[in-house]
Amino acid sequence: MLYKRNCHSLLNRKPFKKLTNNDVSYFKSIVGNSYVKEDDIESYNEDWMKWYKGNSKCVLFPNSLEEISDIVKYCYKENIAIVPQSGNTGLVGGSIPVFDEIILSLKRMRNNFSFDPSSGIVQCDAGFILEEINEKLMNHGYMMPIDLGAKGSCFIGGNVATCAGGIQLIKYGNIHANILGLDAIIADEKGSILRMGSSLRKDNTDLHLTHLFVGSEGHLGIIGNVKMLAVPCPKGISTSLLAMKTFDDCKKVLHLAKSQLCENLSSFEFLDHDILQCIKQFSNVPIPFEKIPQFALVIECSGSDEEICSKKMENFLSFCYDENLVDDGIVTNGFNESKGIWNIREGAPLSVGKEGYVYKYDMSLPIEHFYMLNNEIKNLLQKDKEKLGILRICSYGHLGDGNIHFNLISKQPTNDIYNIVHPYIYNWVVNHNGSISAEHGIGQLKRNYMSIGKDTTQTAISRSIKKLFDPKGILNPYKFVN
Amino acid sequence: MLYKRNCHSLLNRKPFKKLTNNDVSYFKSIVGNSYVKEDDIESYNEDWMKWYKGNSKCVLFPNSLEEISDIVKYCYKENIAIVPQSGNTGLVGGSIPVFDEIILSLKRMRNNFSFDPSSGIVQCDAGFILEEINEKLMNHGYMMPIDLGAKGSCFIGGNVATCAGGIQLIKYGNIHANILGLDAIIADEKGSILRMGSSLRKDNTDLHLTHLFVGSEGHLGIIGNVKMLAVPCPKGISTSLLAMKTFDDCKKVLHLAKSQLCENLSSFEFLDHDILQCIKQFSNVPIPFEKIPQFALVIECSGSDEEICSKKMENFLSFCYDENLVDDGIVTNGFNESKGIWNIREGAPLSVGKEGYVYKYDMSLPIEHFYMLNNEIKNLLQKDKEKLGILRICSYGHLGDGNIHFNLISKQPTNDIYNIVHPYIYNWVVNHNGSISAEHGIGQLKRNYMSIGKDTTQTAISRSIKKLFDPKGILNPYKFVN
Repeated sequence: MLYKRNCHSLLNRKPFKKLTNNDVSYFKSIVGNSYVKEDDIESYNEDWMKWYKGNSKCVLFPNSLEEISDIVKYCYKENIAIVPQSGNTGLVGGSIPVFDEIILSLKRMRNNFSFDPSSGIVQCDAGFILEEINEKLMNHGYMMPIDLGAKGSCFIGGNVATCAGGIQLIKYGNIHANILGLDAIIADEKGSILRMGSSLRKDNTDLHLTHLFVGSEGHLGIIGNVKMLAVPCPKGISTSLLAMKTFDDCKKVLHLAKSQLCENLSSFEFLDHDILQCIKQFSNVPIPFEKIPQFALVIECSGSDEEICSKKMENFLSFCYDENLVDDGIVTNGFNESKGIWNIREGAPLSVGKEGYVYKYDMSLPIEHFYMLNNEIKNLLQKDKEKLGILRICSYGHLGDGNIHFNLISKQPTNDIYNIVHPYIYNWVVNHNGSISAEHGIGQLKRNYMSIGKDTTQTAISRSIKKLFDPKGILNPYKFVN
Repeated sequence: MLYKRNCHSLLNRKPFKKLTNNDVSYFKSIVGNSYVKEDDIESYNEDWMKWYKGNSKCVLFPNSLEEISDIVKYCYKENIAIVPQSGNTGLVGGSIPVFDEIILSLKRMRNNFSFDPSSGIVQCDAGFILEEINEKLMNHGYMMPIDLGAKGSCFIGGNVATCAGGIQLIKYGNIHANILGLDAIIADEKGSILRMGSSLRKDNTDLHLTHLFVGSEGHLGIIGNVKMLAVPCPKGISTSLLAMKTFDDCKKVLHLAKSQLCENLSSFEFLDHDILQCIKQFSNVPIPFEKIPQFALVIECSGSDEEICSKKMENFLSFCYDENLVDDGIVTNGFNESKGIWNIREGAPLSVGKEGYVYKYDMSLPIEHFYMLNNEIKNLLQKDKEKLGILRICSYGHLGDGNIHFNLISKQPTNDIYNIVHPYIYNWVVNHNGSISAEHGIGQLKRNYMSIGKDTTQTAISRSIKKLFDPKGILNPYKFVN
């Protein structure tokens, strides 16, 4: 029951070759004996939430583009399926084998790192951890334009492969806004190394293939290194936590924040009453209001000048109070000072897991439908709440960019939720012009739903493109584009 | 001699069908009699600089995705080649037929326009003019995140198809940073309408095909409409024109501007002594310095607060003066007030054309090589200056994002410049880690040079992708990816 989200129960294993001792020996000849792991590989076969479990017999740790190329070339010849694995911090089972695919870990792809302070461009191998890159850039007053919960363990290659979003997308844009080039190994006969884009901000000398790899979830090739634009670290920061009465007021405050904080608006996060209660109860994070409000917003204003940030936030908040949009609120200035507020927001994903078995839905919705689903599902499940063992229905997320994380917490997993609630939610979202995957990707979890509302021509083109890069379909099979 | 940049002299016409009266009648049945033009089509067969000339016999003006689809389906069946044409403001001959391809003008694709102020997302047909979109958005306090000289006549579809750059890329990013989705008609058997992406800021439910169309120059399909992120109009603006002694100082000032003006830095433009002289002489734009400096910089700081912008600029400039980086300068606050400064920068492309026959090179270079080429070419051509009829060698461009517009002005076009200087420059740029096309694209002009320094695997993949979308190669043939 525990690994219910795995999709292997729905599928037949494809006729990929089963790994032999000869194959393992050959892999050892490429990467060295110590970098082919056959024992104690549980943590590679399983995600951190313990939702998905693969049955791989072997993990490879290549150290260079050439080693990856040699592995892929051999796998092409022998018809061996591969799952590329970065930090393994995903939530949709994209980096976990479905059956016995070998795992190609990018952990040792961390030889090359360079940063050019004159252009702000960083070039590095795919295995560098996001936070670690930030530490290196900090000496130059720069940082990466992505910030997400997993930053202490996710790899930059995985961030690009999944088009990672996070809490600062509203200011810095998504991966497409900041990627300039990358090298990837594709699964053709030669295990070709494709060198795409450049370390230039403007380059229009070919099709922009780099961007095709953004969000491709390891289906087109294995990203070996990336060239990205870093951004100057803000010198000032002002963060507020606002207690809100209605969702309508949240929308109005968003509109105001965009026009008043404008280029300094770096986060606009949203939490509803139920998630706030959950955070308080299960993570012991204090919510600094007399009583838990209907909704809370975390709004951050950051920029190159401390005084300007606090002044802008101050003016913005007085305006919100004057308009009677905000019930109560606190505001902090400075990076350390904001931690208390961010602990609440960051407590959300941690707390839901502590309360029970959690179903996470990561979706984009137009703002007019953003919070509608929450009530819709509450009503739908009202009478069966007891029977389904539902403990809580709650939402939080990135209201600033229309990305809601809707959570259903139950005592234990039940088939009814998989069979009834899943398709209901995904259809509802598509019918309301939303996306069933905002920033978590498709992976195993959503493979059966990704075609809802999609044009068949587009799907056919995606499949043909997949076939160009991976003619035998050995890269991350059974998921996403197949 | 005049149309020397045309590439037809280098090529043989491919065996596309020659247009018959029956074809024309069929096109009339799709778009209506008045929207098939066979007479007075000179302005469609020629670019505005009169550098390229096609020999098309017919221009079609479809009004909907379905009409475009019907045209493309018919052309696929009959093997008729098509050149999609937007505002026809390009500089590389990308929207001009090489032989007798029919022209599909997007001029009438302007039925649908909508803007959602809550998300800042604009959805519109491909034929809207950039400036016109800005006028519509202005009522909501928004504007498009691209600004370029051709804004009064270029179409948004063409901007996306060429990945247009411009003078505010340093603040708002390029098209990839702001595009969310688009519909395009591909040249398969059905003239399929591909609907890609969505009007959501985050959507990870398929390969990101939208981004493959950015910069594809009409080779993969005909863009019918786009979904893009608009940005709030700045309320304050401060613009400075600085006189600089050395290029090294220009680099230092750029570094300072990035860290001090940071999120407010919206333009960082560069002009050298020779282009300033040319502007003064041929456009009568006053240069407000006692004598024309070695280099001039136009730096713009914009944002949601007038006072903050002027204050930030003031502090930044005093810092530059204190460090002895700047020789002289003027600064203006306000949109109207900055026009005098922008007239100088905008005078650059206009003036070079007035002096003589101009060869424009649009390239990206790492900052350490940014201005090196200028002196390199001056030295190279020193002794043949007279013989080649060279009047001026000058540079301007977007230093902030590494994009130089290098100009060679001669009395008249000569083969020597095409045969010797062209390949020398392009090879030099690639050898110095630059790109031979920053923001103008490949088109006809650079088709023979685009493979310099490119990986053959990447080129092969681009060709295969082209084949997927356009199996018969009828879309914009002879240029770019073929």
